[in-house]
Amino acid sequence: MKGPINLNADLGESFGAWSMGEDAAMLEVVNSANVACGFHAGDPLVMSRTVATAKRNGVSVGAHPGFPDLQGFGRRRMDIPADELAAMLIYQIGALVGVARAEGHAVTHVKPHGALNNMACVDAALAATVAGAVHRLDPGLILLAPALSKLAEAGRAAGLRVVEEIFADRAYQPDGSLVPRSRPGAMIHGPEACLRHVMTMLEAGALIAVDGTRLPVRAQSICVHGDDAEAVATARALRDGLRRAGYELAAIPALSGARP
Amino acid sequence: MKGPINLNADLGESFGAWSMGEDAAMLEVVNSANVACGFHAGDPLVMSRTVATAKRNGVSVGAHPGFPDLQGFGRRRMDIPADELAAMLIYQIGALVGVARAEGHAVTHVKPHGALNNMACVDAALAATVAGAVHRLDPGLILLAPALSKLAEAGRAAGLRVVEEIFADRAYQPDGSLVPRSRPGAMIHGPEACLRHVMTMLEAGALIAVDGTRLPVRAQSICVHGDDAEAVATARALRDGLRRAGYELAAIPALSGARP
Amino acid sequence: MKGPINLNADLGESFGAWSMGEDAAMLEVVNSANVACGFHAGDPLVMSRTVATAKRNGVSVGAHPGFPDLQGFGRRRMDIPADELAAMLIYQIGALVGVARAEGHAVTHVKPHGALNNMACVDAALAATVAGAVHRLDPGLILLAPALSKLAEAGRAAGLRVVEEIFADRAYQPDGSLVPRSRPGAMIHGPEACLRHVMTMLEAGALIAVDGTRLPVRAQSICVHGDDAEAVATARALRDGLRRAGYELAAIPALSGARP
Amino acid sequence: MKGPINLNADLGESFGAWSMGEDAAMLEVVNSANVACGFHAGDPLVMSRTVATAKRNGVSVGAHPGFPDLQGFGRRRMDIPADELAAMLIYQIGALVGVARAEGHAVTHVKPHGALNNMACVDAALAATVAGAVHRLDPGLILLAPALSKLAEAGRAAGLRVVEEIFADRAYQPDGSLVPRSRPGAMIHGPEACLRHVMTMLEAGALIAVDGTRLPVRAQSICVHGDDAEAVATARALRDGLRRAGYELAAIPALSGARP
Repeated sequence: MKGPINLNADLGESFGAWSMGEDAAMLEVVNSANVACGFHAGDPLVMSRTVATAKRNGVSVGAHPGFPDLQGFGRRRMDIPADELAAMLIYQIGALVGVARAEGHAVTHVKPHGALNNMACVDAALAATVAGAVHRLDPGLILLAPALSKLAEAGRAAGLRVVEEIFADRAYQPDGSLVPRSRPGAMIHGPEACLRHVMTMLEAGALIAVDGTRLPVRAQSICVHGDDAEAVATARALRDGLRRAGYELAAIPALSGARP
Repeated sequence: MKGPINLNADLGESFGAWSMGEDAAMLEVVNSANVACGFHAGDPLVMSRTVATAKRNGVSVGAHPGFPDLQGFGRRRMDIPADELAAMLIYQIGALVGVARAEGHAVTHVKPHGALNNMACVDAALAATVAGAVHRLDPGLILLAPALSKLAEAGRAAGLRVVEEIFADRAYQPDGSLVPRSRPGAMIHGPEACLRHVMTMLEAGALIAVDGTRLPVRAQSICVHGDDAEAVATARALRDGLRRAGYELAAIPALSGARP
Repeated sequence: MKGPINLNADLGESFGAWSMGEDAAMLEVVNSANVACGFHAGDPLVMSRTVATAKRNGVSVGAHPGFPDLQGFGRRRMDIPADELAAMLIYQIGALVGVARAEGHAVTHVKPHGALNNMACVDAALAATVAGAVHRLDPGLILLAPALSKLAEAGRAAGLRVVEEIFADRAYQPDGSLVPRSRPGAMIHGPEACLRHVMTMLEAGALIAVDGTRLPVRAQSICVHGDDAEAVATARALRDGLRRAGYELAAIPALSGARP
Repeated sequence: MKGPINLNADLGESFGAWSMGEDAAMLEVVNSANVACGFHAGDPLVMSRTVATAKRNGVSVGAHPGFPDLQGFGRRRMDIPADELAAMLIYQIGALVGVARAEGHAVTHVKPHGALNNMACVDAALAATVAGAVHRLDPGLILLAPALSKLAEAGRAAGLRVVEEIFADRAYQPDGSLVPRSRPGAMIHGPEACLRHVMTMLEAGALIAVDGTRLPVRAQSICVHGDDAEAVATARALRDGLRRAGYELAAIPALSGARP
C-alpha cells in the first residue's frame, strides 16, 4: 500500500455576478480546495458557499491569498513592503477562517496565489515574509508550496508543516521550475497525459524535467487547475488512476508525513 | 462605588496614505476600540497597528464592519441581500480576528458602522441578519449597540451578550433615536457639555430627550467620536469626570452586567 | 416603408479575468451598444476592445454608467448625494468618450445601468440629476430611456434628445412599469415570443400590459439582453423579423425623430 | 525679460472622507495643477471641485494618471501589460477631460504619477506606451515630464509637445536622476533653500547634481509638492522669488517653447 496522496485545486474564484470554474464538480473529486479570499478573486458570499460545499464533500479548505488586484486576478507582480504584505495575508486568511468557522468547517492550510506565489518561489526574503505571516497568525496552519521552492524552504524554516505539490499539467525545467506558459511544451494536454506525467514523477520520487533531469522530491499533493475546459476530466482521471495504482487519496491535514 | 462604565471610540479609520483621527491619543483614554475592517475604512496594516496599540494600552478591541463602500465611508445606504450581508460581516470580523490573533490580542465585541448601524437600529429584519451573522461566527462575541435600538433587541434574541451605548455628543429625540445631524441642537458641543449630558443620563438611568422625556436604559458604554477636533479633549473630560463621580472605567468584556 | 427602429444591448460587461456575454456575436446584430464604464462592470481594456469591435461592425456606442459597486454589478440600490452622483456619471461617460476617441469612434448616447436606471425611472429628482449631468458634460448626447419613464421626461426637460426604448423580453404592468422579475410572467421566453411581443407593441404604437392595457408610446429602440443563453438568437430573430416587416434598422444617432 | 516659467503641483489627492493637501491655498499660487484621476487618489467629486477651483484661479489642468492602487497611492510598482496600461491611461485622462468639460475648463497636459512616472523615466518601452496612449487620445495634449528622462524623449518621439520639469525640493545625482529619498541629502528643506536650488539651475540652464556635475536642460516647469507642511510656503517663495528675478509665470499651454 502506497502512502497517502492529495489532489488540490484553486477554487472559489467567482466574483459577484461573474462565474469562474466548475467548482461544484471539482469539489466532488479533489481532496483539498484552495479558496480565494477576496483580494484577487472571490467575495464573501462566494467564499461562504465554496466552504459549505467543500464541507459537504469532505474536502479540506486552505486559504489562497493573493495581491490586492481584482482586475489583474492577482497575476500582476506588485512591490509591496514586507509589513504591509504580511498584514494583507493575515487579513485574507483570517477572513476565510471566520467564514469557515461560521460554516462549521476549518481552514487547515495556506497556498499563496498567482504572482505572489511565483515570486515567493524564487525570492527567499518574500518567502520568509509569507511563511512568517502564516506562522504569526496560526503556527498550526500547513503551508502548501511547490516542490523544491524557496517558499517550501521558508515554511520549514519558520516552523510550519509544509506539504509540497507538483503540477499535473505543467512541464518542468532542469532547475525544478515550471516551463513558462509562453514556451512550447509548457502544458501537458489531456487527462491521460496528465496522469502519466504525475505517475511517472510519483514513482520516481522526483520531478522529471523536459530534458530528463531528475530532481528528488517528496511531493504529497498534486495541483489540478480548476479553470480550464478539461479540469474536471483531468481531476477525475488523476483520482481514478491514482486509486488504481494503489494510492490512498487524502485531505491535506491527513497526510501523515506533512512535516518533512 | 458605582458599577463599571466603558468608553468606546471608532478608530483605525485611516486608509493607505490617508490619515484620519487621533488614534494614538484616543487609545490612551478609551477602554474599547471599534476597529474598521477594510470595507469602509482601514486597511490590513492600519488594522494591525491599531490593534497593536490597543493591546499596549490595555484597550479591548471590537470589529467595526461596514458596507463595502470606501469612497462613501460606509455612510451611504445600500440594499444588500441578507445572505450576502451576513457573509460580508463574517468576512470583516474574521479578518480582524486574524489580525488580532497575529498581534497577540483578541476581538471581543462587534459594532456595525455608519449607514449599516443606522439601518439596523430601526429595521428588525436587518438587525436580525447582523446579530445572526455575529452569532454564527462566534456566539461569545459581545454586540455593542445603541440603547433601545432594534439592534440591541436582535442581539439579545440571537443569544448574544449585548452592551448598550449612549452617545456623549448627540441629543436624543423622545423616541430614543438621535436628533439628525441636519437639525439644530443635534450635537452637544464641548467636553464639559458632553460630560454633563452623559452624567445626567447615567444618574437618571435613562436617555433624556431634548423635550425632557426620560426613557429608562441600562447603558454601560459611552461612545466618543474619534474624528473631530475636540475628540481627545472630550474623551479625557469624560474619563476624568466619570472617575471623579465614582465610576470604574472598564473594557467591554469586563462589564459585569453585559448579559441583560 | 416604416420608420427606422433600433436594437440596443448592454455589452462590455466582462471584467479582468471574468468574461460575460456574447459580445462579439451580439455586435454583429445590434445597432447600438451600451458599454459599461468600469464602476459596475467593464474595465479600460474591455471598454477599449468593445468599442473597437462596435466600430468595425458599424454599431453606435453609448455610455452605460452605473453605481460604484463591482461586486453587486450595479444592481444594489445606493443612496448617493446628487452632486456626487452627477460627478460619477460625468467621470464614467468621460472615460468612455476618451476610450472611444482613442479608437476613432464616438460616444453618442447614454443609458444608466441597473439599480440607477430603475431608480431614475420613478424618481423625478434623481432623473433630473442624471439628465443634468449628461447635459452638463455634452448637450449633444442622446439619452436612451425606458418609454414613459421619469427619466425620459427629465431628459426632455433638460434639453437632451431622448430615444425611448421598450424591452423585448419583459412584460409590462398597466402603469407602464416592468413586471418585477420575481413575479410569474415577468419574462418573455424564446426568440419568437419576443419578436411577437415587440411587433405587437410597435404596430399598436403602445406598450401593451399583461392585462391588455394600452399606453401610447413612441418607442424607437428595442433593448435585447446580452447576458442570457438565448440573447444572440433573440437579437437575430428581432433583426430579421423587423426587416421582414419593413422596418429599417438604424443606429441611435440616425433615428430621425429622436427629438420628440 | 526672461522667458516664461511654470509652477506645477500634484493636487486633487483627497479621496472620499479623507482629505490630503492644501489644495485651495496651492491653487492660488501655482500655474498648473496635475489632478489625480481616481485610480491612485481622487474621486469624481474631488476631481470636479479641484478643476472648478483651478478654473476660478486661472490655473491650467493636467491629468495625473496612476496605477490602479488606491491603498498604495500609486507608489507601488506594478507590472501591467502595455495594452492594458494604455487603456488605463486613456480611461483616466478621458474621465478628467469629461469632468473638466462639465466645469467649463479643459485638460491641457498629462503627467504620470508615482511609481508609473518613476518607471517611465528609466524604461524606454514603458515611456513609449505612456506617450503613445496620450497621443492616441489627443495629440494636442502636452506631456509634462522630468528633465532628461526617457519619458520626455518618448513624448517627443511620439509627436507630443513636451514640457520638462525640475523639482524644487529634490537633489539630483550626476546622471540626472533624483537622489533617492532614502539617502541623506535627498530633500531640499525650507522655502529659501528650494528657491536658491531652483534659481541656480535656471540660471545655469542645467541640472546641478550633488557633486557639482552640470547637465544642460531646458526646464520650463518647476514641480512643488503639495502634500507636506511647507508646501504652500515653498510655492509662494518660488513664485515671489521668480517674479523678483524677472521671470514671467505662466500656465503650461502658454509656455512659448513647449515644442523643443
